[in-house]
Amino acid sequence: MNVEDNCVFCGIARGQSEASFIYQDELVSAFMDLFPVTPGHILVIPNEHFQDFSDVEPDTAGRMLILGRALGEALRKSGLQLEGISYFLAEGAAAGQAVPHAHLHIIPRFPGDECGLRLHTGLPRRATRDILEVHAQSIQNLLPGDVMSSAGQA
Amino acid sequence: MNVEDNCVFCGIARGQSEASFIYQDELVSAFMDLFPVTPGHILVIPNEHFQDFSDVEPDTAGRMLILGRALGEALRKSGLQLEGISYFLAEGAAAGQAVPHAHLHIIPRFPGDECGLRLHTGLPRRATRDILEVHAQSIQNLLPGDVMSSAGQA
Repeated sequence: MNVEDNCVFCGIARGQSEASFIYQDELVSAFMDLFPVTPGHILVIPNEHFQDFSDVEPDTAGRMLILGRALGEALRKSGLQLEGISYFLAEGAAAGQAVPHAHLHIIPRFPGDECGLRLHTGLPRRATRDILEVHAQSIQNLLPGDVMSSAGQA
Repeated sequence: MNVEDNCVFCGIARGQSEASFIYQDELVSAFMDLFPVTPGHILVIPNEHFQDFSDVEPDTAGRMLILGRALGEALRKSGLQLEGISYFLAEGAAAGQAVPHAHLHIIPRFPGDECGLRLHTGLPRRATRDILEVHAQSIQNLLPGDVMSSAGQA
């Protein structure tokens, strides 16, 4: 298993660093963020070290969001202040990744909270169909064969 | 299958509304966002209508992120401007959800882009271990039994 000696999340996954755990199995761990954006802010990580989410094994990636969904359900019942939930995963510093071990944020949201997750800084601008078709085609052509083999209409 | 007549994403999933598709199988669909935050902005949706991501079936939720991971990999090879990738899923208007059919955003990121996804609006503040332990315990107690049965140490 891929482990990075100086990685704080590897330390947590291996039980060598302190964390407030909610869940752990052979693939993933969930624990409270030490710097919560709002109370109840949870992190879900693959136990194995991958800086980029793109490099996480598909089964583990799937488990991260299956667990995330269940954690969101639990948060809704927890009595913590919450009108919505933001799920956020950043790959690369340009995308907002601070710790170089892939992690999914699960953040309780309410009006006036200190979370800055907003999609647009300007006005949304509609793209032309031509451009969107070119982008769709170029991305589709690069999807791995094992993904495309389960596709129906596309 | 749960379908909402006036839902734009239900229309797309059923092939009744126009979209630039990348992928579709029996559970999920991926297509280009009509209002891209940056070029290459993709949406992944469950084909079935659920407003809240918490209500999406676990298998479908897992498939959404497995597909998302593969799409991220494809985006990295696509030649589109990209130094990072943000994955964002909002449940509820307070969390940033605009269309009331659960959807995962996959957004190419680069310095100076128009995407506003930032975690903190203020300075991150460290929480006390006592508070984090209370939150972890209250959330863990509410996780469904089928999730906890696969947990090891927690």
